Order: sequence, then structure tokens, then C-alpha cells
Amino acid sequence: MNEEFSKEEKDGFYKAVFSRRDVRSHFTSRSIDEEIIMKILKAAHHAPSVGFSQPWNFILIKDNKTKKKIKESFEKEREHSAKLVEEPRRSKYLSFKLEGIIDAPVNICVTYDPSKFGPFVIGRTAIPETGVYSVCCAVQNLWLASRTEGVGVGWVSILSNDVLKRVLDLPEHVTPIAYLCLGYVEQFAKKPDLETARWLPRLDLKDVVYYEKWNQKQNPDWNKIEELIRTNIDYA
Amino acid sequence: MNEEFSKEEKDGFYKAVFSRRDVRSHFTSRSIDEEIIMKILKAAHHAPSVGFSQPWNFILIKDNKTKKKIKESFEKEREHSAKLVEEPRRSKYLSFKLEGIIDAPVNICVTYDPSKFGPFVIGRTAIPETGVYSVCCAVQNLWLASRTEGVGVGWVSILSNDVLKRVLDLPEHVTPIAYLCLGYVEQFAKKPDLETARWLPRLDLKDVVYYEKWNQKQNPDWNKIEELIRTNIDYA
Repeated sequence: MNEEFSKEEKDGFYKAVFSRRDVRSHFTSRSIDEEIIMKILKAAHHAPSVGFSQPWNFILIKDNKTKKKIKESFEKEREHSAKLVEEPRRSKYLSFKLEGIIDAPVNICVTYDPSKFGPFVIGRTAIPETGVYSVCCAVQNLWLASRTEGVGVGWVSILSNDVLKRVLDLPEHVTPIAYLCLGYVEQFAKKPDLETARWLPRLDLKDVVYYEKWNQKQNPDWNKIEELIRTNIDYA
Repeated sequence: MNEEFSKEEKDGFYKAVFSRRDVRSHFTSRSIDEEIIMKILKAAHHAPSVGFSQPWNFILIKDNKTKKKIKESFEKEREHSAKLVEEPRRSKYLSFKLEGIIDAPVNICVTYDPSKFGPFVIGRTAIPETGVYSVCCAVQNLWLASRTEGVGVGWVSILSNDVLKRVLDLPEHVTPIAYLCLGYVEQFAKKPDLETARWLPRLDLKDVVYYEKWNQKQNPDWNKIEELIRTNIDYA
């Protein structure tokens, strides 16, 4: 295999990045073939991990009884969190569809098991959180791979981890990191739902980049740079 | 743009996933053009984030004085961690090259700022760690995008976050999540270094997948599935 990426290969990669969405609506009932799920999970499994510890597991959930218990937890947590925001944002918040637990044919809980290949894991001693960070990298691989397969993914984080642990029989030392809803979708939105709803704007790239130290800006010619890095992908 | 991915587009994406490596050696001194760095950071900035909070910042570091301070922290932490592992693994551990801080022309510290668009962030109330998880997704986008551009990335986690915060002038409420070394490389290894060195083996996919509950296996025909999802990428 050629080490270098052709223009077409790069375009394929960037298309996945820029057209990936957090999907909560528009799931169809079409089931996902086992081989597609496994292809997606293989991409996840080839994420980087601290000290090559591969500390992730993927629990595939299709049972409606389980999904209903998770959905109940969502509803309870949503109600609780709504109390933390004032009107008129509260009503707007409550109007959003924020999960597709039942609609999506497959749910996947991605977990972190710190005991895997432990206790000494290279690179995890000074910053123990890097174990969890590895699992998040796997989630992002899963998400992007799903997009290339036409499968939408929604990450539901309005949940109780205690409920997840109990319902999925997780051992005490295992932490649920992500609860994902997967399914084919009628469409992928052009922009994130919360951007379209004017809940929050997309930040400019130049506002998240610093030079040498926190808050230190250089003055490169941003207009020129933005012109150069403009992709031909209208989702971007 | 067509919603579906062509075979070529998918192949480009999976090539990035399976040929991405954590790079510590073989950096060349060739500098990275500003537009390539910004293209990579744009991919990072289009990661998913909880409640669209985009809580990341990217600090680009080229100053050798800064790199040397970080390198000192690495050396101190490596010495400390070596005490946690017994011989003969200790000597093997100490023989590995685990960072390219000085060799790589660009270092990037990726940080988490929980105050961005806060305090109420949709989806972050029940599981506050999801803010950090978003930053990790951005790191993975950065890593994959770098690979498509021929740029190697090494994540150095044998570091003191206190030193990072002091050296980079991070405010108290901001957390360093990843310290990355970027540069063009002579080659990307076919397998992870720690796999090649027989430090740890790659787990089989079937050993990280459960069904419905923790530790519950189904018995799909794994040989058949592995045949179906075999890619034409020999790195995989």
C-alpha cells in the first residue's frame, strides 16, 4: 500500500469528518447487518490507546426491554437538568429531541476497563485519565466509520451512569463512557442541530488557536488561510 | 455533495484509521506549512462536542525553550514511573523511545475549558466528564487528519499536568488533555511499536464485543465475519 494519500483518499476522509453528525431524529427502522456493525467496531478497536492497553469494550444492545430502562433514565435526568436553566432557554431546551434510544435499531455502550493489561500501563501513571481518553478516541473512530457506512450515531449523555451500570451488569471497576444510538437515517443534517436551532454558534477556528502560550495570538493572514483550507464539502 | 460514500471515499477513510500510528521516532526536520496545520486543526474543530460547546483550544508550540521544559518533565515522570514496574519489564520499558518532543517541529497542547458557553451545557449536567470526552474526540480527528497529510503524531502522556499548566500559562480552570508532537516522518510503522516489541498483543475484536450485557457473548460465526470485514489495507 502506498504510504501517501491520494487526493481522492483525503477527500473521503475529510468528507467523513465534515459530514458526520450527532443524530437524534430521522432514524429508519432498517436493521444494520452484523458485518457492517463489526466493520465499524473494527475501526473503533484500531483507535490509539495509552500503552496499547485497548481498555474498551462494546456492548451491543437491541433488546427493547433494556432500551426502555435506559430511556427512563434519560427522561429522569432531562427533567432534573431542565431545572438548571432559566426560561426562555428552558423551554427551548425541552423542545429539542435529544436521543433516539428506542428509534435506533442498535444501541452501543462503550466502556472503560482500567484493569485490562494492568496495573502498570505505559504512559498511564502520570496522567491516569489517559485510559478514559483512549476510549473516547475509539468512540470517534466508531462515529466516523459509521458515517462512511451511511449509519447515523447519536451520543446520549443525559443519563445516569449508575443506571447504565446496573442495567448492563457492569462490574464495579468498569465505567460507561459513551451510550450511542446507531441506525440508518433518512438524511444527515447539513449542520449540527444546535447550530441550526441557534442555540450556539460555531466558533471560528482562529478563536480556538493559540501560539506558544495560552491566549497568545499571532496574526497570520486568517482570510488567506481560510481560503486555502476551504474544502469542497458544503457541509463544512 | 452525494450523501453516500463511494468505495474510494470509504477506502480513504479506513486507510487513515488503520495506518495511523503513535509516532515517537523517525521525525524529519521538515517544517509543516501553516495551511497544513490549520487544515488539520479544522478537522479537529469539527469534532462532536457535548451541547455543541466546542470546549477545546489548541496551543501550537515551536519554541525550543518551551519544548525543553516539557522534555524535562517527561524525563522526571519517566524515572518516577519506572519505579512502578519490576524487572525485566522495567529495563524493557526504559529502552523504549516514548516521545519526540524536541525532534518534532511542532508540538500541540490540546486543552479543555469547561467555562466555554457555560455554565449550562446541554448534555453535560448528568455526566460532567463529557466535556473532556469531546476534547478527546477532537484529538482523534486531529490524529487521523494528520495521517492523511503524511504528518506523524505522538501523544506524550508521561508528563506532569502541573508543569504543562505553568509552562503554557493555562488559567486555573483549564485542563491540558493531550500533548502532541507533530512532524513529517520517514515512515509509518506497519504496527504499533508496543505490538512489534511484543510488549502487548492486539486483542481480537471478538474479545471486546459483548451482547446485551457485560460479558455476554453471542456466537456469531467470527471466522466468516472476520473474512467479510478484512480490508485490503495491510496495516490492519
